[in-house]
Parts: sequence; structure tokens; C-alpha cells
Amino acid sequence: MLEAIFWSGGSARHALADGLQFSRSKTNALAAGLLEQGLLDEVGLQLSTGGRRPETLRVHAQVGVLFGVDIGATSLDIAILRPDLSVVARHSQPADVQAGPGPIMARLRALMPAMLADNGISPEEVLAVGIGVPGPVNFAVGQLVNPPLMPGWDSFSIRDDMREVTPAPVFVDNDVNLMGLGVLWRLHRQIQDFLVIKIGTGIGCGIVCHGELYRGATGSAGDIGHIGVDLAGPLCRCGNRGCVEAMAAAPAIVEMAQEAALSGTSPWLAERLKVKGRLEAVDVGEASRAGDAAADAIVRRSGQLIGQVLAALVNFYNPSHVFIGGGVSAIGPMFLAAIRQSVNQRSLALSTRHLEITYAPLGHEAGLIGAGVLAMREALRNGSIAA
Amino acid sequence: MLEAIFWSGGSARHALADGLQFSRSKTNALAAGLLEQGLLDEVGLQLSTGGRRPETLRVHAQVGVLFGVDIGATSLDIAILRPDLSVVARHSQPADVQAGPGPIMARLRALMPAMLADNGISPEEVLAVGIGVPGPVNFAVGQLVNPPLMPGWDSFSIRDDMREVTPAPVFVDNDVNLMGLGVLWRLHRQIQDFLVIKIGTGIGCGIVCHGELYRGATGSAGDIGHIGVDLAGPLCRCGNRGCVEAMAAAPAIVEMAQEAALSGTSPWLAERLKVKGRLEAVDVGEASRAGDAAADAIVRRSGQLIGQVLAALVNFYNPSHVFIGGGVSAIGPMFLAAIRQSVNQRSLALSTRHLEITYAPLGHEAGLIGAGVLAMREALRNGSIAA
Repeated sequence: MLEAIFWSGGSARHALADGLQFSRSKTNALAAGLLEQGLLDEVGLQLSTGGRRPETLRVHAQVGVLFGVDIGATSLDIAILRPDLSVVARHSQPADVQAGPGPIMARLRALMPAMLADNGISPEEVLAVGIGVPGPVNFAVGQLVNPPLMPGWDSFSIRDDMREVTPAPVFVDNDVNLMGLGVLWRLHRQIQDFLVIKIGTGIGCGIVCHGELYRGATGSAGDIGHIGVDLAGPLCRCGNRGCVEAMAAAPAIVEMAQEAALSGTSPWLAERLKVKGRLEAVDVGEASRAGDAAADAIVRRSGQLIGQVLAALVNFYNPSHVFIGGGVSAIGPMFLAAIRQSVNQRSLALSTRHLEITYAPLGHEAGLIGAGVLAMREALRNGSIAA
Repeated sequence: MLEAIFWSGGSARHALADGLQFSRSKTNALAAGLLEQGLLDEVGLQLSTGGRRPETLRVHAQVGVLFGVDIGATSLDIAILRPDLSVVARHSQPADVQAGPGPIMARLRALMPAMLADNGISPEEVLAVGIGVPGPVNFAVGQLVNPPLMPGWDSFSIRDDMREVTPAPVFVDNDVNLMGLGVLWRLHRQIQDFLVIKIGTGIGCGIVCHGELYRGATGSAGDIGHIGVDLAGPLCRCGNRGCVEAMAAAPAIVEMAQEAALSGTSPWLAERLKVKGRLEAVDVGEASRAGDAAADAIVRRSGQLIGQVLAALVNFYNPSHVFIGGGVSAIGPMFLAAIRQSVNQRSLALSTRHLEITYAPLGHEAGLIGAGVLAMREALRNGSIAA
């Protein structure tokens, strides 16, 4: 029941009873017990549908806090969250995941206790920790498996290492899976079958099937970055040619931008390169919005290649929604338009008839919120939250 | 409980109790009730694990029969099945699905009552009918949606039309979904995340996710035939270029075989064409096994193209098993070898580490058995089987 209330983001008794297929009296009795134990509280008033005014039940804010951690390829984000996933405190800093687990784990060891102290929260109040990483994870044991963006992390157990930092249970998952969880929570689980695509340094996909995150037989589901789009394309670090990640993710966009700047086809990017000394994917987006034709072509090419992969996945998976997120997705509306056009052109009419391709809800926060969702869900399931 | 016994293919009480997480006493009481109502019977003896000898509980064979119907692109198969899916009677005949619903439905109207009469079964004993069709189905309403191989069937409701044939409930699904259900039943639901690929006149895929058939947001999941493998490939009837179905399914194989026969590159196929007047996919398989190099190349090319699509799907879906079935899969071991090689070459090591690509269990029967599984499962769920 607590889990249903958590996913609903707050719910009236009658709606809960309907959702759980419990009787009204059973629901009322359970709610009374949980209220008495201090695990629930009642807030505000929902719009009445007649009869007794229904109060909204929520997981009690004083039950404890969660840590959400998002280890990105080039950044580290940490948040302390309440059970309703509102943010108590947040810290972001650049980080290089390629430096291996040592430096990153050392920072977590320093930052997490400091954040608690700064906010007057005692370590015992931490219910659970959710951590997202940019690579494949064996979820059951919390270990990274052969992560291509994270050399040095192979078989490293973040969960074991975190025992020194906090006594709370630690749950580790792939960053895109956590985006999927974040979106699923944000949508109150009302959309059952969808994909979340993250486009940044790499390209990954979170899969939601029948309202649950799908991790695949060995936890690597959604690893779409090395799907081939051009058999004669450039060599990828995976050893194959023409992987979509090698041709359309941030490094490829930057490479094309540098070429456009140096060859003179883009005066705008040439100027930016001169001023900044280097180019990033966001510069290409800015140039495109400023009307630079070469930048436009780069954005459209990247979107078109990603759309080509998505078209196949849409035929196969027939999702109702595809949510686009990650750093590169902010490169501008032209990017989303190119993805949509490419999908509609190559997918069957039946699978695109009701398909929506939009930006992911929660934006840049989806991964961090998802880490909080993971922590909260697992804490609810393993009994950490109980009187 | 009946459904759990059906999926297990017969189960001892203690195994049932474990599987359903019921207490032994609850399980015994439920079983006693169902035995008394004649819905279960006890057969044989399972190997004892100590203590009281456990008998195997099965859905009672006298509860009634099921009809399984497999409408193929070029064939019509009908079976009367017992609740354990053993075949009571079976009928197969060539049929042209392109002729539209009229002729096919007329044959069902004639054949189904005749089969019942031949076997001394009264129409009231039919519990449910499961029907598979080679096209996308809106499962909820039992209607075909825009089926490319079945012009004339668009929006036709097989379920409504069947009301004249039998009072039993009728359930219609895509043929590859039914293969998936058949395999899931055969494996006693022990494998949770797998794909079934059917290669015949078209190419389709059945998706099993978390132990349940996945139909997608609008019922077209698994429609992989029009995934592109060569942007410069031949024009497909869907309007795009280089769809895998247009390049690797039976019609493409036959076309390549005819070319090899007429151009003189395959003396074996030329001889067969002279004798038979036309070539089929099986002829190419036979030629390949007889050592004909041109036929070999055709088989390998088809397998390689299908493997190219599968590689992307394996990266995305990370199944534990991919089962290959359909008429073309019988073209010979070279075909399966080419698929495996192509997948292993283009998929990530992590997703293929424990991946098995094998022929589908149940062989040609998978679709028909799957139609029976659908009928039985829906009959159990909608209460048709009750005292």
C-alpha cells in the first residue's frame, strides 16, 4: 500500500482502494495503522467527487531521506531527497568517470556526510541510496559489467564500497534505466509501454514494459549505442563499423563541428572555436539556431541517424511514447524534428499511428530523480521503511 | 490455481503451493474442491522427494476441448485439442489468405462442425477457440488492422463472424504471438525473456517479457519485417527500400533461386526448375545440402540479413533465447549458422554472452499449439471453465 501511495504521488483513500482492488474498509484500516505508525500523513484536500471530503495520503516526509546519485561520464550529481522526491539539497560538479572508481568514490565519501551535516540530517535518517552509472550493471549484485565508457570499473562493486559511507542499503543501476524509472514515477505509472532515449557521450535506452522497468536477461537491455546504421561507416571503439553512437552522439557531433569550423563551411563555428579553443555539442545547437547552415546539417544528420535506429525499435517494440533526453537532446528543436521525420519515414504506419516522440519529462533531473525512485522503491520493498 | 496447473503441464501439490506461494493446507483444500467439481484429475506418480507420495494434478481431460486454428499465408490448419494440448484431431489444407475472408471463413464453417462430428464431440464441449492470422491484430476486439499480407481482411472481425460457427468464445491473435505463447507453455514459463522469430512469406517476431506475451501499445509489437537492412536495397511493397522481409523472406529466396537457375550459376536449381516448373524455398535448402554453391550463397545471404536485424534487437532487448521458426527456418543448418554468426559479429559481447539462438520448440506445431494455449488461457481467465 505504501508503494502504491508513493507511485501515485499522493492519493485519496477511495482511489487507493480502487487501484489496489482492496475493499474500502480494508483500505481505511490499513491507512489508519500506517498513519498511527507515522509512515503516512494526510495533506490538503483533493477535489471532492461527492460524499465525504477525501484527504490525500502521502508517505510521511519525516520517515527519512534518500540519496540520489548520478555518476555521469563527465559529471557527478548528488541530491538529498524527501520520500515525495522533493529536493532537500543538491550538489553538482564536473567529474571524469574514466579516471576509475577511486577518485569518484573518494568524493562521495567526502560529499555525502558533508551534505547531511549541512542540512542538519543525521546519517541514521538515510533510508536508502540510489546510484546511476553510465554503463551496464548487474543489478542483483550492484556490479558494473564491462562498461565501455568506464574502463577500470569492470566488476567493481559500488554497493560494497559504499558500506564505508553509509549503513543504508545502496542500489545501483544503469543511468538510462534510472531515467526510465524517473519518468515512470513522474507519469504515475499511467503509461505502461515506453522508451526513454538518452543521447550524450553515449546513446542508451530505458525500456518500460507492462509498467515495469525491463532490464533484459543479463541486465544489458537498452544498450542501443552499437546498433549499426552504416556498414561502411567509421570504425567504432567496439570494433564494428558504423555504430549509431560513433556517428551521432556528442563526440561525433563535436568532430563534425570541428571539421566544419576548420574547413570554413561554418564561419559561426570557426569563430566560436577561436574564442573558446574547443567546441561542444551545445555550440552546434547554438549555431544552428543562429542560422548556420553547416551546423544545421550536423544536427539534422545526427537526428536522422538516431531516428533510423528508433524506426527499427518502434517497429519491434511498438511503444506508445518515446522520450528523448540527455545532453545532446538540448541541441535544439531541429534535432527532435529530424528524429521524428526519420522514424515516421521508416516505421510502419500501424506503429506510429499513436506514437508520441517528445522530450523526457523531468529534463536533466530525470536521472537524479530516478535514482531517488529506485532508492525509495527498494527501501519500501525490503522493509527499511517500517515502524 | 487452474491456470498455474495448466502452465506447469501437470504439477504436484507441494510444487503448486511453492509456485503460488499458498500454504500447503490452502492448496490441498483448493485442489480437493476442484477435484470434486471434476475440473482436475490426478494422474501417475511423480518421483517422490520423501514423505507422502505426491500425485500429479492436471486439468481434467473431460472438462472439454479447444479448437486451435492457424490461418497461414498459404495454408489452413485446424486442430481439436484436449486441455493438456494433446491433439484429438487435426486437419491441414492449402489456402490462399489473399483471397479474402469469405472463402477461408466458409471453410471453417464447414470443417469445424465436421471435425467435431467425426470425433463424436458435441458442439457444447468446445471451451474456446484460438485463431492465429499472419497480420497485426487488435487483440481486444479481435479485428485485423491493416494486414499487409491479407488485403481484404482490414477491419474484418473474425470473432464476430465465428459466432455463426460456435457459441464458444473466440480469441484471435497474430500468428507469431501465438508461436510465442506455444513456446512459453512448452517451456512451462521457466524462461521469462525471449524472442520467437518466424520466417516464411513474411518475417515476424513474438516478444515475451517478464514471462508474459508483449503485444505493444497498439498491438503491432514484433512487426520486424520492414526494418531496413540496406538503404539502397530493392523497393518493398511497404514503400521503403531494403526491408529485411523484401530481401530475406521466402519470396526473395525464391527470386534469387530462379535467377541462379536461369543464369546457369546453379545447375542443381536449373534442373529442379525444369522438372517442377517452379522453385520454392525448400528447393534452395535441398540444393544447398546437395553441395550447390549458388544455393549455399542464397541461404547464407538470407541468414546474414536476418542476423543483422537480430543483432540490433539483441542489443536492445537482451533476450536469453532467440527461437527461430517458420517455413524458411527448415532451409537447413547453414541458415541458422549464418544467423548466429551475423548476430555474434554485430551484437555486444554482454548481450550475447549467455544468448542461445536455436530452432523453436514444437516446430511446425508451435502456432497451432499456441492457438490452443490462447484458447485455454482465456477460457480459464474468463470463467468458461468452472463448475
